[in-house]
Amino acid sequence: MQLVTFSTGAADRVGVLTGAHEVLDVTDLVPGGTLLGAVERWGEVGTILTDQAADRTPVSLADVRLRAPFPAPRRNVFCVGKNYREHVAEFGRSGYDSPDRSEDLPTRPILFTKATTAVIGPGDAIDPHTGLTAELDYEGELAVIIGRGGRGITREAALAHVWGYTMINDVTARDLQRDHKQWLLGKSLDTHCPMGPYAVTADEVPDVTALELETTVNGERRQHARLDDLIFDIPELIATLSAGITLLPGDVIATGTPAGVGIGFDPPRFLASGDVVEITVTGLGTLRNRVA
Amino acid sequence: MQLVTFSTGAADRVGVLTGAHEVLDVTDLVPGGTLLGAVERWGEVGTILTDQAADRTPVSLADVRLRAPFPAPRRNVFCVGKNYREHVAEFGRSGYDSPDRSEDLPTRPILFTKATTAVIGPGDAIDPHTGLTAELDYEGELAVIIGRGGRGITREAALAHVWGYTMINDVTARDLQRDHKQWLLGKSLDTHCPMGPYAVTADEVPDVTALELETTVNGERRQHARLDDLIFDIPELIATLSAGITLLPGDVIATGTPAGVGIGFDPPRFLASGDVVEITVTGLGTLRNRVA
Repeated sequence: MQLVTFSTGAADRVGVLTGAHEVLDVTDLVPGGTLLGAVERWGEVGTILTDQAADRTPVSLADVRLRAPFPAPRRNVFCVGKNYREHVAEFGRSGYDSPDRSEDLPTRPILFTKATTAVIGPGDAIDPHTGLTAELDYEGELAVIIGRGGRGITREAALAHVWGYTMINDVTARDLQRDHKQWLLGKSLDTHCPMGPYAVTADEVPDVTALELETTVNGERRQHARLDDLIFDIPELIATLSAGITLLPGDVIATGTPAGVGIGFDPPRFLASGDVVEITVTGLGTLRNRVA
Repeated sequence: MQLVTFSTGAADRVGVLTGAHEVLDVTDLVPGGTLLGAVERWGEVGTILTDQAADRTPVSLADVRLRAPFPAPRRNVFCVGKNYREHVAEFGRSGYDSPDRSEDLPTRPILFTKATTAVIGPGDAIDPHTGLTAELDYEGELAVIIGRGGRGITREAALAHVWGYTMINDVTARDLQRDHKQWLLGKSLDTHCPMGPYAVTADEVPDVTALELETTVNGERRQHARLDDLIFDIPELIATLSAGITLLPGDVIATGTPAGVGIGFDPPRFLASGDVVEITVTGLGTLRNRVA
C-alpha cells in the first residue's frame, strides 16, 4: 500500500494512493487522523484500510498538495554517514570530513540526526540559506520507517520491525558540516530534509537490497546505486541503533547516500538557486525539490 | 517559579514547588496537562499559576515520584561539546575525540543531540548497558529551556526566548562515542539523559553567568565551574542554532560540561554499578541518579 500525507488547504490528511495516481482520503479511518497514528496501530488499521479505502471517492493528485509522510516527526530523523564504499572515498578526498581525511571504510555505523524542523514535502522549496552557507549539497537516500518499536532487535528480527520505506534528501551545508565538527547543524537547516513522496508498506518491497536509487540535478544523473551496496545493511543499522536505544513506531532511519554528491566532483558542484533535485528509488516514486 | 512533572502512580502531573518543598498540583490549569503545554502558552499560564496555584492542597515531595520536566521531549535534546576550556584540554588528551587529538579551543560550537528515549527523571536508575559499553562517563550540565521559539534570534534577543533552566547529566558511553565518530549513539543509550529535578523560570535567575555547577560521584567533587566559563555563552548558542533552525517552545539545549569527567583522569575513572552522581547548580536543586 502507498500512503500519503496531503493537504487541500486546511489540516493535513491521510490518503491511500491508487494505481491511477489518485488519492483516497482515509483520514477518519486512522487514529489521530495522522500517518503516525496509522503506523502505530497498523495491525488493525492496515486491515481497515484494505477493506474500506476503495469505498472513498478518489481525488486527483493534481488537486492536492503532498506533504512529507511525517511533516513533524516525533523526534529527529536518524541518519547514517559514509555508508556506500565509493562515497566514503569521495568524502575523504574532499577534505570536508574534517579533521579526518581517511578513505578507509568505517568499522562501525556513523550515526547522527537531522532536526525535525528541517522536514519538508515533495515539491516544497529548499531554502539555500544564503549568508549561512555557500556550499549547499544534496544526498539522495532510502529511508526506513519503523513500525513495531523495541530495543535489542536482532539482525534476524529487524525487517519485521520495518513498517515501510520512503526517501530523504539529506541536504547538507558542507561548510557548516566541516566547521562545526559534529554534523547536526550542517544537516538541520530549515527545509533541508525533503521527505517522501509516499510511504510504501514493506510488503510491496519483497527485497529491499534489489532496489536502485538514482539522484539527478536538473535532469543530469549524479548518483546511482543498488541498495545492496550499503556497507551496513538495514538489519545491521536497526540492530546497532536498537541495541541501546528504544526505537519507536514512526522513527525514520535514512540509510546513507551513494557516491556522486557535489563535493565528489573536482571542483565541487554545489547546488544553486533554481536547481531541481530528483531522487528516485524503484517503486517509491520520485522526490522532487527545487532550490529557492 | 519552580515547576515539576511528577507522578503519584498514574499519568504524569504538573506541579508548582513551594518554599517548603511541597508540590501544588496544577495539572488542570495547564494546556494538555503537561509542562510543555504550560511553556507553550506561558504568557497566560504563568499568570494563572501565580494567581491560583496557592489555593491547591500541598503534597509532600516525599509522597510523589519526580519525573524529568519533559519525560518525552518533542524532539532530541540539543547538546554542545567541548564548551569549557579545561574540558577541551582533558578531552583532547584522552584520545576519545577520535581522530582529533587537538587541545585547541573550538572556533564554532560543536552541536549534536541525545535521543528522546534517553530521558529519565531525578532518582531514576542509570542503566550501565553492560555488554554494550565498558566506559560509562558522567557530564554535569546546565540546560536551557526555550519558551518562545523562532529563527534568526540575535544574541541580544536570545535571553528573551529562554523560558527557564534545568540540569542534564549528559551520560556518555565513551567507547561508542569514539568508535562511531559521530556522537549520537554514545550519547543516546536508554536512561543516559537524566533531566531535572525542577524546571525553574528565567525570572528566578537574574544572571545565569553567575551560577555555579558542581558534580559529585559518591560524594567526591569531580566537576566545578561557573557558567561564565562557557566558551560559547547561552546567547551565542541560541543565535548559532536558530540562525538556520527554527527553535520550538520546550526545546532543551544542554550547554556543555566542565573539566573533571571520568576520562579527564589518568587512568580514567569510569562509572560503575552503584555509583551515585549528583549535579547541583545554584538555585536549580540537585539532580541525583544511581548507576544500576
